[in-house]
Amino acid sequence: MPPVAGVRLATAAAGIRYPGRTDVLLALLDAGTTGAGVFTRSKCPSAPVDWCRERLKRNDSGGARALVVNSGNANAFTGKSGRAATKLTATLAAEAAGCKPADVLLASTGVIGEPLDAAKFAGVMDHLVADAAPGRWEEAAKAIMTTDTFPKGAAAIVRVGADAVTVCGIAKGAGMIAPDMATMLSFVFTDAPIAPAILKSLLRKGVENSFNAVTIDGDTSTSDTLLAFATGTAAARGVAKITRLSDPRLPSFRKAFNAVLGDLAEQVARDGEGARKLVEILIEGATSKKSARRIALSIANSPLVKTAIAGEDANWGRVVMAVGKAGEPADRDRLSIWFNGIRVAHKGERDPGYDEAAVSAAMRKPEITLKVALGLGKGNDRVLTCDLTKEYVAINGDYRS
Amino acid sequence: MPPVAGVRLATAAAGIRYPGRTDVLLALLDAGTTGAGVFTRSKCPSAPVDWCRERLKRNDSGGARALVVNSGNANAFTGKSGRAATKLTATLAAEAAGCKPADVLLASTGVIGEPLDAAKFAGVMDHLVADAAPGRWEEAAKAIMTTDTFPKGAAAIVRVGADAVTVCGIAKGAGMIAPDMATMLSFVFTDAPIAPAILKSLLRKGVENSFNAVTIDGDTSTSDTLLAFATGTAAARGVAKITRLSDPRLPSFRKAFNAVLGDLAEQVARDGEGARKLVEILIEGATSKKSARRIALSIANSPLVKTAIAGEDANWGRVVMAVGKAGEPADRDRLSIWFNGIRVAHKGERDPGYDEAAVSAAMRKPEITLKVALGLGKGNDRVLTCDLTKEYVAINGDYRS
Repeated sequence: MPPVAGVRLATAAAGIRYPGRTDVLLALLDAGTTGAGVFTRSKCPSAPVDWCRERLKRNDSGGARALVVNSGNANAFTGKSGRAATKLTATLAAEAAGCKPADVLLASTGVIGEPLDAAKFAGVMDHLVADAAPGRWEEAAKAIMTTDTFPKGAAAIVRVGADAVTVCGIAKGAGMIAPDMATMLSFVFTDAPIAPAILKSLLRKGVENSFNAVTIDGDTSTSDTLLAFATGTAAARGVAKITRLSDPRLPSFRKAFNAVLGDLAEQVARDGEGARKLVEILIEGATSKKSARRIALSIANSPLVKTAIAGEDANWGRVVMAVGKAGEPADRDRLSIWFNGIRVAHKGERDPGYDEAAVSAAMRKPEITLKVALGLGKGNDRVLTCDLTKEYVAINGDYRS
Repeated sequence: MPPVAGVRLATAAAGIRYPGRTDVLLALLDAGTTGAGVFTRSKCPSAPVDWCRERLKRNDSGGARALVVNSGNANAFTGKSGRAATKLTATLAAEAAGCKPADVLLASTGVIGEPLDAAKFAGVMDHLVADAAPGRWEEAAKAIMTTDTFPKGAAAIVRVGADAVTVCGIAKGAGMIAPDMATMLSFVFTDAPIAPAILKSLLRKGVENSFNAVTIDGDTSTSDTLLAFATGTAAARGVAKITRLSDPRLPSFRKAFNAVLGDLAEQVARDGEGARKLVEILIEGATSKKSARRIALSIANSPLVKTAIAGEDANWGRVVMAVGKAGEPADRDRLSIWFNGIRVAHKGERDPGYDEAAVSAAMRKPEITLKVALGLGKGNDRVLTCDLTKEYVAINGDYRS
C-alpha cells in the first residue's frame, strides 16, 4: 500500500494486555487535516466513542492532528475512570505531537469493563512521535488486531482533477461485527482536499453497503468506529478542494473511496472468528431495498444457516426459515434459492433438477454465494457474513479467561 | 403424569425418516373437545400450520377429534405436495377414527423442504386407533422428538368448582426455538369444560411468559405449533363449563395451565441443542415490560454472551454490549449486573467488591441466573435460554446430511 501524503504512522508495545506484540498505533496528521466518523449505535458506547463524537461535534471544521488506537482493552463500561483515560491519552498524544488534546481522536478495542491504564502510553508516546513515518500500513494494521488472524488493509489511487490522490485504509474486526456500525475499528486516509461536510457525506453513504452490510454474529460492539481523514496535501499538487456534492470529480473519488471501504469490510467478514467460509447473501425481488436488507441480515445472522454452511450442507430449508422469520413480505410459493449458482429450490418447492452431487461439490468451496429471489418487487441487496464453526465457540468461550 | 379423561394416545413407527424408533403420534379426543392454537409468526409457515390455522378459523366451536403429529419431516416448503400430504394425513386419521377430516389437527417436525410421504401413515393408522389408550404421555413425548435429548412432559391437577381437573402437556424443542412462537411443538390437554373463546384467551396469554419467553438460537421455525385441547369430560363429574373470563374459578385454572406451559418451556430451554447450562435472564428497571423483553432477548440471543457462559466466564462486558445493541432506553452509568446473585458490575463500572474466585465458582453451576438492573423504570421481565457450545455447531452442521 502506498503512503498517503500528510499521514505518518508508528506503533509500539505499551503492555496494555498482550505480551510480546504491538498494541498501540499513533497516526500523525498534517495541519489542515479534516476528520469524520461514524460510530456504533450501541446505547452503551465506549469512552473513546463518546470522546470522538464530542470532538467531531464541537469541531465544525473536523480538524484532526492525531489518532491513537490501542488493542487489548476497549475502555468500555469503565465509568469515570474511562473518561479520565481518554482525556489522559489525548493529552499525552497532544503534548508529544504538539497539538491540542481536542485535535486527537481515539479508539480502543479489546476487553470490555476493565479499567484502561492510559498512563502506560506515557512511556511510549515520545518514541511514537519520533518514529512516525509514512506508509507503515501493515505495522499499523497489526497493532490494532485482537482476535483477527491477519492484518487488513486496502488502497486505491484515483485521479481527481489535476492529479492523482490516494485512499488507504486499515481495519480490524473478527467478532462482534454487526450493523450498525459493522466494523469494530477502521481508519481511512486520503490526501485529497475535501471539505468536512463532503467527507462526512462520503462516509455516511459509503458505510451502508460496506461495513453496515457485514455481520459475523449479529452482535454489535460498544466500540465500533470508522474514521476518515483527508489531509488535503494533494492541494499543493494543484488538486482543488472538493467543497460541493455536485463537484464533477466527486463520483470517481467516491467510487475509489467506496472500493476501499468495501474491500476492508469483505476482509472483516472473511476473518470472522472461527470462519472457514466467506458467505455472500444476495437478495433479489424483495418489496424494497430496506426489506431486502432485513431479509439478508436475517439469513446472515441465523445460527442454523451458518452452521449448515460450516457443515457444507446446502440446507435451503433453513434459508426459508430465515426468510420467514425476517417479518418482511415474502410468499413461500414464489421463493427460489441458489447456492453458488445452483438452483436448489424453485417456487416454493425443491427444484426438480436438484443434483445433490453438484450441490455438495459447490458447498465445499471456501466462498459461498447464497441467492434468494422473492419474486415480489425490485428490492435487491447484498450482505457478507461467514460460517459458524466450533472454533467460533472455542474462541469466544475462552476469550477473557 | 395422570391420564386426562377423553384423551387416548398411541404411537407408531411409520418409517418417515428415523430407523428403529416411533415417529408418529395419534391423540384421539372425545366428542365435544374444543381445540385452540397459536402458531409460528414465520411468513413461510409449514403446510400443517396452514392446515391448523384454516381448521381453527373455520371452526368457531373449535371442535377437534384427533391430532396427528409426526417427527422426521416438517412438511414445510413442500408446495402443492405438502398441502396434499396434510389432506391425506387428515383423511386417513378421520377414516380410522370415525370423524371428519376437518376435525383432525396436524403438526410435523423435522427436515424442511423434503416431500412428506403421508401414504406411510396408511399402514399404521388403524393400529394407532385400536391401540390408543389414556395416559401414554411418555411414549407420546418420545414419538415427537427430533434432536431432543429427553422427552418433555408436565402435569397439574387443580380444583375447578365441584371437582378436580387435570392439565397435561408434552413438548419437543431443542433448536430453532425463538419467539414468536417459541416452541417447535407442544400439546396441552385438559378435561376441564372450557368454551372455545376462553381456551383461546388462556392460550394467547399463557404463551407470552412461557414459550414466547424462551429462545435457543434466535431462529424461528416454520412449524412452531402450540395446541390446547379441552375435552370437557369433567362436566360429567359436575364441573360446570367455564364460559366467561370473569368466572371466579378461572384464576386458579389459569395458574395451573400456565404452570404446565412454563414447565414445558423451561424443559425446552434446558434441552437446547448442545446446551450444558440453563440460563435465566432477569431484567429489572427497564422503561416498560416490552422494553425489558427486548433487552432480555438481545442478551439471550447474543452468541457472545452464550459462548461466554459456555466457557463459564462471567463476561459482563458482553452483557453490556447486548444491552447496548437492543436499541432500548439504557443508561450505561446506571447499569448493574449479577451472575447467580453476585454483583459484578455496578453503576457503569466493575463492582469494587468483585471477587473473581466466588464468581468463577458460581459460573461452574449448571443453572445460571443473569440479572440486569437498568435503574430507569418499573419494566421487569424474565427469559430462558441456554449456552452456546461446540456441540450446537456439531449438531447443526451435520443435521441434514
